[in-house]
Amino acid sequence: MNFDEELRKKTGEVEKILGMYLPEPEGFQSRVLEAMAYAVSAGGKRLRPLMMAETAALFGGAGESLSCFMAAIEFIHTYSLIHDDLPALDNDDYRRGRKTTHVVYGEDIAVIAGDGLLNYAFETALRAFGKAAALEDYQRIEGALNILGKKAGVYGMIGGQCADLVAERPEAEVTEETLLFIHENKTAALIQAAMTIGAVLAGADEKAVASLEKCAGNIGVAFQIQDDILDVTGSTDVLGKPVGSDEKNHKLTYVTMHGLEESGRQVEELSREAVAILQSFDRRNLFLEKLVEQLIYREK
Amino acid sequence: MNFDEELRKKTGEVEKILGMYLPEPEGFQSRVLEAMAYAVSAGGKRLRPLMMAETAALFGGAGESLSCFMAAIEFIHTYSLIHDDLPALDNDDYRRGRKTTHVVYGEDIAVIAGDGLLNYAFETALRAFGKAAALEDYQRIEGALNILGKKAGVYGMIGGQCADLVAERPEAEVTEETLLFIHENKTAALIQAAMTIGAVLAGADEKAVASLEKCAGNIGVAFQIQDDILDVTGSTDVLGKPVGSDEKNHKLTYVTMHGLEESGRQVEELSREAVAILQSFDRRNLFLEKLVEQLIYREK
Repeated sequence: MNFDEELRKKTGEVEKILGMYLPEPEGFQSRVLEAMAYAVSAGGKRLRPLMMAETAALFGGAGESLSCFMAAIEFIHTYSLIHDDLPALDNDDYRRGRKTTHVVYGEDIAVIAGDGLLNYAFETALRAFGKAAALEDYQRIEGALNILGKKAGVYGMIGGQCADLVAERPEAEVTEETLLFIHENKTAALIQAAMTIGAVLAGADEKAVASLEKCAGNIGVAFQIQDDILDVTGSTDVLGKPVGSDEKNHKLTYVTMHGLEESGRQVEELSREAVAILQSFDRRNLFLEKLVEQLIYREK
Repeated sequence: MNFDEELRKKTGEVEKILGMYLPEPEGFQSRVLEAMAYAVSAGGKRLRPLMMAETAALFGGAGESLSCFMAAIEFIHTYSLIHDDLPALDNDDYRRGRKTTHVVYGEDIAVIAGDGLLNYAFETALRAFGKAAALEDYQRIEGALNILGKKAGVYGMIGGQCADLVAERPEAEVTEETLLFIHENKTAALIQAAMTIGAVLAGADEKAVASLEKCAGNIGVAFQIQDDILDVTGSTDVLGKPVGSDEKNHKLTYVTMHGLEESGRQVEELSREAVAILQSFDRRNLFLEKLVEQLIYREK
């Protein structure tokens, strides 16, 4: 089975898991449940749950609790998109070629649908305890929950979103340090959560978890720089979202700061380092290595 | 020490706990941390953490893990106020006589400040594991986390908010069943979480936890009906928020449905039943009983 077939197969398995954990739209709260399902079913690469599972496999695989965290991290990623797209934030009407949640369900429902998904992400992750037998299981799940909380929160993704919003204001002074903080938190933090949670649930030691955090940090920053490159070089048809939006919003990016060529070199170096880390463990996971490369050198 | 002195003292202790767990505004994400601190420091009755601690006391008191959950539930209550006040939802510029978070920090920061508080609530509750010694502690904390997740989410508070938003739409058909669902979830769910978490952390048995859930449900519904009564009979000076807003928004409430007198009787009956449950356990907590009465028969 070649990489693309394997990727399709594994992505399909993630979709099954998401469908398994996503609540049925019913009852007096059906509207918010519909909006949550609409946002989750928009698709996308399912990158974070995939990387979590593949990193767990790199350490011999995790138990049943893994699927709870795979769903949880995708729910968190999805809620952040719902809120990012709101008129008060990026004000995007389309994402992945589909109308965004607030366009379809209204701003009020979109706000609480995001809240609902964030809250439900923790509810879902907590279900992992139901599959815990020994005290060791408890402690691994506790570790995974702490990573999820920190990397999704004000010392992770939300912290990066804040710095990003502040940086977009006219009066803001944006340095390269600011930009790196934004990439490392807004984008990299959830990828770090995905890979380190997979490792922790599989019982990897602290040293391995620490180097995976570095690896995922590189991947996240490279991914974001590639995103900025695509915003300049890509086309709306391929991306399913408007291009040139960064320039339109006078948004400072690696590309506007260093130009396309230097940004490309940066991506190159970060990803080489990341893959080297993946190859430094007892086991190899060729699919994960290829996934990382494809992810960074993507066209959409 | 009389009730008011005791209430002041205990509320002060809650404020200390909130200050202890609330993150310092610093770093590239200082803006969102400021907005979170601004919203939390707006004050209010600190009812939920108070009731959690007093319910724990009714069962002999809980361990160190209690304070984590006291802070967590107030953070969740506060985030829900930030998002409720947004222009896309209730569009309130003032709360408790102070400008609301989006008026001071902007809508974009207010959205992620709410997200930040919700996420941080779970981060804070998870810190309880750090104080766990035996497997029994782990399991109590797991139970408390599951209650927090469910009662704050789409099968609790957020579910109630959704039904409330849908009910406000012109085309909506609102029945008494709808209204009860809204009260039981939008308002009562977090009070149920507060009391049952306090009981679970103190090691109360399932039967006791179940009757406390009923007790807290009554308190929450009575509280909400009282809120609707005050919206008609109260004054802006006393409430620190505009009155008549329900009528202004053509909002269906117990009062608009049954009138002031019947609503008052409803409050009376619900609270009598709630206090009877509180008096049905081996221990008594006179402060908690008085707190419940004051809460329901309040003027603001």
